[in-house]
Amino acid sequence: MRKSAADRFRHLFNRSLVFVRNQNQQYHHPSPLRSLSSMASDSPFPVTAQNINPQVLKCQYAVRGEIVTLAQNLQKALQANPDAHSFDEIIYCNIGNPQSLGQQPITFFREVLALCDYPALLDKSETQGLFSADSIERAWQIVDQIPGRATGAYSHSQGIQGLRDTIAAGIEERDGFPCNANDIFLTDGASPAVHMMMQLLIRSEKDGILCPIPQYPLYSASITLHGGHLVPYYLDEATGWGLEISELKKQLEDAKSKGISVRALAVINPGNPTGQVLAEDNQRAIVEFCKQEGLVLLADEVYQENVYVPEKKFHSFKKVSRSMGYGDNDICLVSFQSVSKGYHGECGKRGGYMEVTGFSPDVREQIYKVASVNLCSNITGQILASLIMSPPKVGDESYESFMAERGAILSSLTTRAKALEEALNKLEGVTCNKAEGAMYLFPRIRLPEKAIKAAEAEKSAPDAFYCKRLLNATGIVVVPGSGFGQVPGTWHFRCTILPQEDRIPAIVTRLTEFHQKFMDEFRD
Amino acid sequence: MRKSAADRFRHLFNRSLVFVRNQNQQYHHPSPLRSLSSMASDSPFPVTAQNINPQVLKCQYAVRGEIVTLAQNLQKALQANPDAHSFDEIIYCNIGNPQSLGQQPITFFREVLALCDYPALLDKSETQGLFSADSIERAWQIVDQIPGRATGAYSHSQGIQGLRDTIAAGIEERDGFPCNANDIFLTDGASPAVHMMMQLLIRSEKDGILCPIPQYPLYSASITLHGGHLVPYYLDEATGWGLEISELKKQLEDAKSKGISVRALAVINPGNPTGQVLAEDNQRAIVEFCKQEGLVLLADEVYQENVYVPEKKFHSFKKVSRSMGYGDNDICLVSFQSVSKGYHGECGKRGGYMEVTGFSPDVREQIYKVASVNLCSNITGQILASLIMSPPKVGDESYESFMAERGAILSSLTTRAKALEEALNKLEGVTCNKAEGAMYLFPRIRLPEKAIKAAEAEKSAPDAFYCKRLLNATGIVVVPGSGFGQVPGTWHFRCTILPQEDRIPAIVTRLTEFHQKFMDEFRD
Repeated sequence: MRKSAADRFRHLFNRSLVFVRNQNQQYHHPSPLRSLSSMASDSPFPVTAQNINPQVLKCQYAVRGEIVTLAQNLQKALQANPDAHSFDEIIYCNIGNPQSLGQQPITFFREVLALCDYPALLDKSETQGLFSADSIERAWQIVDQIPGRATGAYSHSQGIQGLRDTIAAGIEERDGFPCNANDIFLTDGASPAVHMMMQLLIRSEKDGILCPIPQYPLYSASITLHGGHLVPYYLDEATGWGLEISELKKQLEDAKSKGISVRALAVINPGNPTGQVLAEDNQRAIVEFCKQEGLVLLADEVYQENVYVPEKKFHSFKKVSRSMGYGDNDICLVSFQSVSKGYHGECGKRGGYMEVTGFSPDVREQIYKVASVNLCSNITGQILASLIMSPPKVGDESYESFMAERGAILSSLTTRAKALEEALNKLEGVTCNKAEGAMYLFPRIRLPEKAIKAAEAEKSAPDAFYCKRLLNATGIVVVPGSGFGQVPGTWHFRCTILPQEDRIPAIVTRLTEFHQKFMDEFRD
Repeated sequence: MRKSAADRFRHLFNRSLVFVRNQNQQYHHPSPLRSLSSMASDSPFPVTAQNINPQVLKCQYAVRGEIVTLAQNLQKALQANPDAHSFDEIIYCNIGNPQSLGQQPITFFREVLALCDYPALLDKSETQGLFSADSIERAWQIVDQIPGRATGAYSHSQGIQGLRDTIAAGIEERDGFPCNANDIFLTDGASPAVHMMMQLLIRSEKDGILCPIPQYPLYSASITLHGGHLVPYYLDEATGWGLEISELKKQLEDAKSKGISVRALAVINPGNPTGQVLAEDNQRAIVEFCKQEGLVLLADEVYQENVYVPEKKFHSFKKVSRSMGYGDNDICLVSFQSVSKGYHGECGKRGGYMEVTGFSPDVREQIYKVASVNLCSNITGQILASLIMSPPKVGDESYESFMAERGAILSSLTTRAKALEEALNKLEGVTCNKAEGAMYLFPRIRLPEKAIKAAEAEKSAPDAFYCKRLLNATGIVVVPGSGFGQVPGTWHFRCTILPQEDRIPAIVTRLTEFHQKFMDEFRD
C-alpha cells in the first residue's frame, strides 16, 4: 500500500542518517539533514521537500556539500571585510579543480580552441604571429573534420566522427591494441557518462553496483538518483588502499544472499580519494572476476596521466583485458576519461568520453538512443578531448614548450603530493598513505573521544566537525571522509594536492598549528 | 510478484507499440521496435536488451531516430559513390540545427569566445587588428568575472556569478520585472535542465506531467526515462494550434480520475513542432490555471527570439505572471532558455539556463544539490548564454554589424517559413499552419488508404512510411508526426525552415515532384 507522504518522508529521513548499510557496518555517515520542522508541510508552495522525488532527497554529494557552502559564506565575509577572519583567503582543497588554484592552461590546447571558436582567424595573416604553426594546422584539421565546417552545429550524438577517430588512434597508441571510433561516446565530462551507464543498468533497488569504499561520491549519488543499490567493497588502508579480490567475492556473495542482482563493478584507477595505482596483476584478477561473474567493468580512468611514483605505471583495463586474450565479445568494459583531470585540468570545459566495448548491438543501440536525447556533448569539450589524446609530437613547433608545461605541472604535483603527505604524517594521530596517483591525499585522523562527543553534540559526524573547525581556523577547505565512505569508527578527510607549490609551506604551517591546537583542546 | 524478464520484456514491447494512451485516443504511434527475435536471450553478453532498465528501452526520440540512421547510411553511400542516388546530398530538415545547413555564427559572439578561450591574446597588440574593440572589452569583463581568471576551472554549480548577473539584467530588460541572479541555473543546453526538473518532480508512474500534443519529444523521452506519466493535452490544429484551457482542464480531470497526480504543465512557446506564438491573454489564463491547480509551469521559451509575424510578440511567462501580480511566492515557474536556438543557433556550444522561481528554499537546495553532482555546465556555453542575453548595444563598435547579421538571419527565416508553408499548402491533401515562430512547419498530410495499407505491410506508421519514401527519393530528412504525437488518424511531419534561402526553390521542386508521384502511386 502507498504510504502517506509524511510517513515516507520520515522513513527517508531516518534512512538518510545511515544512507547505505552493509550488514552491521556503517560506512557512510553524512552530515545530518536539516531538521524536519524546517520542511513542514504547511508550505504555501505546491512543491515541497516532502513531495519531490525521494531519490533526489536521499542523494548526497559531499564534495560540494555543507562544507563548501560554509566556505562560500566565509569568502563573502572576507570580501566585505578583509579582517573578518584570522586568514585572508579561502583555499579550496575540496575538489580536483587545478586552474581554480592558479594552474595555467596548456598553451597549445587553448590556441587550438580559440582558432576553432573563431575560424575566421585562420584566414588572416596576423594569426601567424599570434599562434604556433602547429596549432593553426591542427585547427584547420579539426575544422575540416566537422561536417560543413559548422563549428556551432549539433554533432553526431556520439561526437564528431573525425575527433573520435583521433581519440581512437590515441587509445591504440596508449594500449597497443585496436580501438574502434564507434566505441567512443563523447560526453560533457565523465559525470554524465557515469550517469548514462547507471541509467542503463539499474532497473530497481534490487540492482546493485559494486563500488570501492572510500569512493568518489559521484558513484553513490548516481546510484541513489537512479534508484539502485550501492554494494560496497572496502579498500585496505593498511596495504596502501589495496583492492583484494577476496573482498570483492565476499561482498558480491553477501549482496546476492540479500537478493541483490549485482550488475557492475566500478573501479577508480588511479584511486579517488585514495590515490593508489593498481598493479597490473591485480587488474588482471579484477578482469577475470568480472568475466566470471558476468559483471560490467566500469573503469574510471580519468587520472591516467596522474602517476607520481616511478615504480607504478597506468595500464588501462582495456589493455589489460586484451592482453589476457579477452576480446570485444568476452567482457563488458566501459572506460571513462575526462579533460578535467590529467596535467591539463580543464575542468570548466566539460569534455570527456567513454569507450564502450563488449555490449551487444541491441544494447549499443539503446546507449546511442539515450545519448541522442541530449543531442550531443559540447563541441569545445569534444575538441579538447581529441587534443589530450593527441598532443603535440616530436618535430611540431609546440612540442618543446608543450612538454615543458606538461612536465612542470606533473613534477610539481609530485613534489606537492610528497610535501603534504609528509606534513600530514607528522601530525599527532594522523597517518596518510602515499598519493601514487590522482590528485588527493586521504589521511586517517584518530580523533580523541572528547572531540567525537563534541561533534555529536553539534549533530555532526566527527570528521565533518574536524573539517569545519579546520576551515573556520585556517580557510582551508577539505572534505570529511564520511562523504566518501570509510570503515566504521575510522575518520578521514580528503585534501587535494593542488595548491601552487609556493603556497604549500604556508598551508602546512596553518594545518599543523590548527591540528596541534585542536588536539590540545580535545585530547582525552 | 516480480515478473520474469521475458514477461516484462514482452509487456514492454507490446506497450511500446502504443507508447502512451489517453482513453481511447492513440496519439503516439512510433515506428515499430526491432523484432523480438533479434533480442533473444541466448546472448553471450551479460547485458541484453531484456535486462536493461525498461524505461530506457521504452524511451523514444524520433528527432534522431530511425529516419536519421537511414539518412546517415544514404550519406555514406553517396560519399562512396556520388551517383548512388538520384540526389547528390542529404538535406537535414529533421532537427533545429541552423549552422549545419550553412548559417554562419554571429561574429561578435565568436570573437568573445576565442578571446576567453585564449586570454593571452588580450595582452597582445596584434589582437587590436583582429578583434573588435567591444569584443576585447567584453572578454576582459568576462575574464575578470571569473574567480582567479581561471577560465578552465569548474564554476559555481549554478554557473559563474558574474555571468548570471548579466543574464538576470538581460531578463529584467526583456520583461520589465526584477530577476534574481540566484534564480539562474546555467546548463549544457535546455535538455539537461528539463531532465533536472523531471527528476525532481517525478516520484513514480503515478506522477503526471501535462504536455502539449504535438510535443517536442524531449518531454516524452524525459518523462519515460524518469518513470513518470505523460498527460497529453491536444493543441487545436484548426485554430492554428490553439491551446485551450478547457482542454487542459479536461485532461487534468481525466488524469486525476485515474489516480495520476499531475505535478506540472509543460508549455512550449513559440511552439515546437507547431510554430504558434501564444497570445498574452491565453498565457494569463494558463498562469491562472497553474496557480489554481498548484501545478509547476515549465515554460520552454527557447524560441523567444524566433517570431516571424508582425502581429505576434513573445512574452515570457515570468513577465505575464508578474504583470498579473503573482510574485515569487505565488507560482512555481521554470523558464528554459538555450543558445541553440534564436537567431544565433549555437547548438554545438551546449549553453542554456533555467530561471527557477516560486520554489521553497528547501526545494531550491535540492535543485542546487542535483546541479552540484554534475559540478557545472561548460564555461564556453555559460559565456555564450550571457552574450545572447546581453548582445552589443547602440554605440558599441560591433553594434551595426551585429544588428545586420541578426536581422539578415531573422528576415531570411521569415521568408523561408513563408515559402515552405506556401509550397506545402499547394500539395494535394496537405494543409499547413503558418510558422508564427520557432523553426518548424508541421503540415498535415491526408494519406490515401492504399498508402496506409502499404505502410502497415511494412510495419511502419503511415507518416513514417511517407517520410522514408521522401528521404529515399529526394535526400530530404523530415520527422514523422508520430514522433511528436498527433490526433489519432491524422498524419503529419515536421520540417525545419532552416535550409539556406537560395536552396529553398530546389527543395520545393523536389518535394512537390515527390509528393505528386507518391499520390499518383497510392491515390485511392
